[in-house]
Amino acid sequence: MAVLGSEIERLIQLLAKLPGLGPRSARRAALALLKKRDTLLEPLADSLREAADAILTCEVCGNLDTQTPCALCSDPRRDPHVLCVVEDVADLWALERAGVFRGRYHVLGGALSALDGVTPERLNVGRLLERVSNTGNGQSVDEVILAMNATVEGQTTAHYLMDLLGDRKVTRLAHGVPVGGELDYLDEGTLSAAFKARRAL
Amino acid sequence: MAVLGSEIERLIQLLAKLPGLGPRSARRAALALLKKRDTLLEPLADSLREAADAILTCEVCGNLDTQTPCALCSDPRRDPHVLCVVEDVADLWALERAGVFRGRYHVLGGALSALDGVTPERLNVGRLLERVSNTGNGQSVDEVILAMNATVEGQTTAHYLMDLLGDRKVTRLAHGVPVGGELDYLDEGTLSAAFKARRAL
Repeated sequence: MAVLGSEIERLIQLLAKLPGLGPRSARRAALALLKKRDTLLEPLADSLREAADAILTCEVCGNLDTQTPCALCSDPRRDPHVLCVVEDVADLWALERAGVFRGRYHVLGGALSALDGVTPERLNVGRLLERVSNTGNGQSVDEVILAMNATVEGQTTAHYLMDLLGDRKVTRLAHGVPVGGELDYLDEGTLSAAFKARRAL
Repeated sequence: MAVLGSEIERLIQLLAKLPGLGPRSARRAALALLKKRDTLLEPLADSLREAADAILTCEVCGNLDTQTPCALCSDPRRDPHVLCVVEDVADLWALERAGVFRGRYHVLGGALSALDGVTPERLNVGRLLERVSNTGNGQSVDEVILAMNATVEGQTTAHYLMDLLGDRKVTRLAHGVPVGGELDYLDEGTLSAAFKARRAL
């Protein structure tokens, strides 16, 4: 498309790399940016630059923040004795939005996958074992919650970690019918799990 | 979500303003950016900055380019006697991708809409009439193609322009069955238009 200047072309190509944007929506996004120069383009350019300069990976848990250790790891009100292991920073954000957990996190940075070549060495596992083994500073971990995704890769990772963590208290999230979900739309695996784990009313 | 630094929060808010990205996909996009700092975040920040500095609105046709008059208006190989009027730069891009038109464009910057308060004064109409009336420089316009969207607003705009353009040759795009389209999925309006405009085989 020679009609577009190389600047616009390059912007579209970069936007199309964002998850959720294909080539067509990347064009629409680029156009929206160019039309709203003062309210969107300039602020987004500045914001990306700031983020590139300021955001660090927490050396304790693997979270993203402007400080390391991150705000969650440094927060004295959060229980250091319970560790919730997640695959990804997005999962940490989701749990924080739900506001259900007041302990500390550990971000693996993915899940084991032979297909994608993700081996234990490529995950943040060594640091997890260090944290769990560290009992000297009054921050000994009493429970490890494995909050992996309920996918084959996530569950493989959970089993792998369970073996590594030995005789410590290890828990996982419950499987079942999502709140608001309709049975008719659920897969057999979920229904079967929900049925097996049924609770007395 | 106090867990996110204000930098990340602001980035997500700005990304969510892009068409096609909601709050959830904006979070995913922000995370993808932060994870791919060197290959995506930094290049996108630079590209946005470059675009903000370099992209101009063509003072002849309303197209976006790094020069004004734009590359299309300055191209001597393009026929200056045929003018294709479109609502938006995106429509110009779409026609250029199709490669069906070798004349000049005129971008209105929208379509008439009482609901959205888009009056003729807010569109690039005055400049269009100037271009059409200008006969002195050997660039007299013989045909104006009204390539508005086939929406109520687009068609209203087309009728409005047709009245203004008086007795000049004014054409519009054909309505009909989209190539590759199945009759079963088309609305009555399209089918009716395709039926009325049927052609001898």
